[in-house]
Amino acid sequence: MFRKIFKNVSLVSPVVHCITNYVTVNDVANIILASGASPIMADDIEEVSDIVSISNALVLNIGTLNTRTIESMIKAGKTANKLNYPVVFDPVGVGASKFRMNTTLRLLREIKFDVIRGNASEIKTIASETKSSKGVDVSLDDTIREDNLEYYIELGKRVSKRNNRVVAITGPIDIVTDGDKTYLIRNGHQDMGRITGTGCMVSGLIGAYIGANPKSILEGTTLAIASMGLCGELAKKEIVKKGLGTGSFRAYLIDYMSNLDERDLMEGIKIEIK
Amino acid sequence: MFRKIFKNVSLVSPVVHCITNYVTVNDVANIILASGASPIMADDIEEVSDIVSISNALVLNIGTLNTRTIESMIKAGKTANKLNYPVVFDPVGVGASKFRMNTTLRLLREIKFDVIRGNASEIKTIASETKSSKGVDVSLDDTIREDNLEYYIELGKRVSKRNNRVVAITGPIDIVTDGDKTYLIRNGHQDMGRITGTGCMVSGLIGAYIGANPKSILEGTTLAIASMGLCGELAKKEIVKKGLGTGSFRAYLIDYMSNLDERDLMEGIKIEIK
Amino acid sequence: MFRKIFKNVSLVSPVVHCITNYVTVNDVANIILASGASPIMADDIEEVSDIVSISNALVLNIGTLNTRTIESMIKAGKTANKLNYPVVFDPVGVGASKFRMNTTLRLLREIKFDVIRGNASEIKTIASETKSSKGVDVSLDDTIREDNLEYYIELGKRVSKRNNRVVAITGPIDIVTDGDKTYLIRNGHQDMGRITGTGCMVSGLIGAYIGANPKSILEGTTLAIASMGLCGELAKKEIVKKGLGTGSFRAYLIDYMSNLDERDLMEGIKIEIK
Repeated sequence: MFRKIFKNVSLVSPVVHCITNYVTVNDVANIILASGASPIMADDIEEVSDIVSISNALVLNIGTLNTRTIESMIKAGKTANKLNYPVVFDPVGVGASKFRMNTTLRLLREIKFDVIRGNASEIKTIASETKSSKGVDVSLDDTIREDNLEYYIELGKRVSKRNNRVVAITGPIDIVTDGDKTYLIRNGHQDMGRITGTGCMVSGLIGAYIGANPKSILEGTTLAIASMGLCGELAKKEIVKKGLGTGSFRAYLIDYMSNLDERDLMEGIKIEIK
Repeated sequence: MFRKIFKNVSLVSPVVHCITNYVTVNDVANIILASGASPIMADDIEEVSDIVSISNALVLNIGTLNTRTIESMIKAGKTANKLNYPVVFDPVGVGASKFRMNTTLRLLREIKFDVIRGNASEIKTIASETKSSKGVDVSLDDTIREDNLEYYIELGKRVSKRNNRVVAITGPIDIVTDGDKTYLIRNGHQDMGRITGTGCMVSGLIGAYIGANPKSILEGTTLAIASMGLCGELAKKEIVKKGLGTGSFRAYLIDYMSNLDERDLMEGIKIEIK
Repeated sequence: MFRKIFKNVSLVSPVVHCITNYVTVNDVANIILASGASPIMADDIEEVSDIVSISNALVLNIGTLNTRTIESMIKAGKTANKLNYPVVFDPVGVGASKFRMNTTLRLLREIKFDVIRGNASEIKTIASETKSSKGVDVSLDDTIREDNLEYYIELGKRVSKRNNRVVAITGPIDIVTDGDKTYLIRNGHQDMGRITGTGCMVSGLIGAYIGANPKSILEGTTLAIASMGLCGELAKKEIVKKGLGTGSFRAYLIDYMSNLDERDLMEGIKIEIK
């Protein structure tokens, strides 16, 4: 199944519409292109419906949320829902301000998301519905480890069931659940957190994978996250070997994604069904 | 002539004012700097006239068009026209929404552009004046090949004559025409389409080249495109040799531009007059 | 003292709130992360107070100033002042338009900045309070050299005393002064000016250094600039050795920052007290 999901991305080459933040938008576009899909970034309310109608998936990201684009997100999300296109939500730094929190709650009420992807702090904040975090980076207290894994799986399931959608919590171990079935992913490298945008990139990539595989939301999301983690591992290994740092790490991550073939993917991913 | 045009870019070091999209703006700034020119990005209506007045060229790009900046584009364009500075238009994804289409038609009515540069889908859309495309990337049906080259040359000439300006259609073969004289360029590599922003970058580069050579719009545009294609070829060769991918390809493209010298350029460009 | 300041950055891992331009924002975020701090970019007036309250430092940058974010800057600045968090101001291209000039004067009136950092043209413009520059890049007439160093030190001191804050003028020789004590830094490489955003990055880095060392504003600023210059030198050397250009230079600069250790820093910095 994962083989087919992977092949479909470059076969279908889905158009992924992103309303995203201006910090990491270029990396998001490049990782989507690297995966074989085609990104389009458009956030003006005058055109979002048109753009959604030529797209295969929609990704909403509140990383640099502003009042102008909230209505665009709502409109794009509703149009995508009507057309039955998968929609991904990335609640970047939702705990950092009441503005992000309230907008997140509104988006969750008005749009049916197929996937919510965040780090452990963000998903915890969504579960509790209270402003709490230190910023956009995951709090150290919220690191997913083997010894607290069950807690986070339950958290993911709870948020998933309440909202009737796939929830992905990314971290040292990634959790992807639809409330019943849960995948754990043990790919990735901790230094991916030292580059801005790895979270945003993986959300964009989920858009590419499920845009090409709209009937395999759970597995598409899982594979997108695993492929990103795998490319992170491979890139990190190369960076260490060459004595480079986070600037090159970012470029190499996209390099590996653009060169990823089925065999390397299938050999490298560490996905466990729970 | 091409030699002189190339030398002038670093000699004059023109200031290139860009009102452009937030996806690729960093790459546009870096490629302009790499060419020896000086970019300035400014899009608030309160300052665009001042910025135009200290610039040598203006580049308008609708990649993430929004209502706030349309009026800024109009004002900047009119000021540049009044001051007789060359203006470049990049109709990114013009076929993707009525909003982009209507804005493009308005810009074409109210501003005298010296150069319009787009991919084949975009220029076709402008010729037909109807919304049609799949997104911001060129449609596969619209690939310029030897066997449909005449069709696209005629298309370019038609759009050029109707608007009395230079039209550049970039693709596997690039076409640059002022309606009478036409240049064909056979530089570049198809994988340049796998990086976001190569189109935007070449439009920025045209701003640099014609900003430094305002009396050689046709040839300046041609050389800008050829130099970008050549750097793409050289970068791609290096990427393949080193086993890297699109993340490094993007960096190497700018590397080659920043190191480009007259001899390499003159030996490498494949420009044919038609 | 410099040792302690450096160690504190990764120890405290301060949250650095930036309201900055969309051209170089990604590089600013990545260099802040590379230094060990945590960036958060947020510019909507609805959330800036919340964001400031979870941050350790604020950086305001007018590189793509727009009317929407001026009020956000004012509000964020005032909140930071109230909470006694250090605030950095980067007056990018202040001489390029009346809009930037007037906004700069307003920001200087309404916010107490701890550090103003600009190139020589920008600080001269602030001193004279008149629109004058060619763009966002430093004018050739304004290059700090040994033979005009005294002039620029006096200029920095004057601006510093008038505003009661630290002023940093970056260039071939960097000057950091609080009006009484002055540091000169002789790190860096002139080709750093061939990458967009090195100025913005150093301002972001100052935010990281003084956010972690709020009682050592003068020395924190000095060390941030010296570390950036040192990484620029090291990156440039590597780039030349490998025959690369400005695209890779940008990545390597961040590489060196992310790998910088105390010993290399202390051996490499060229700081002189004046």
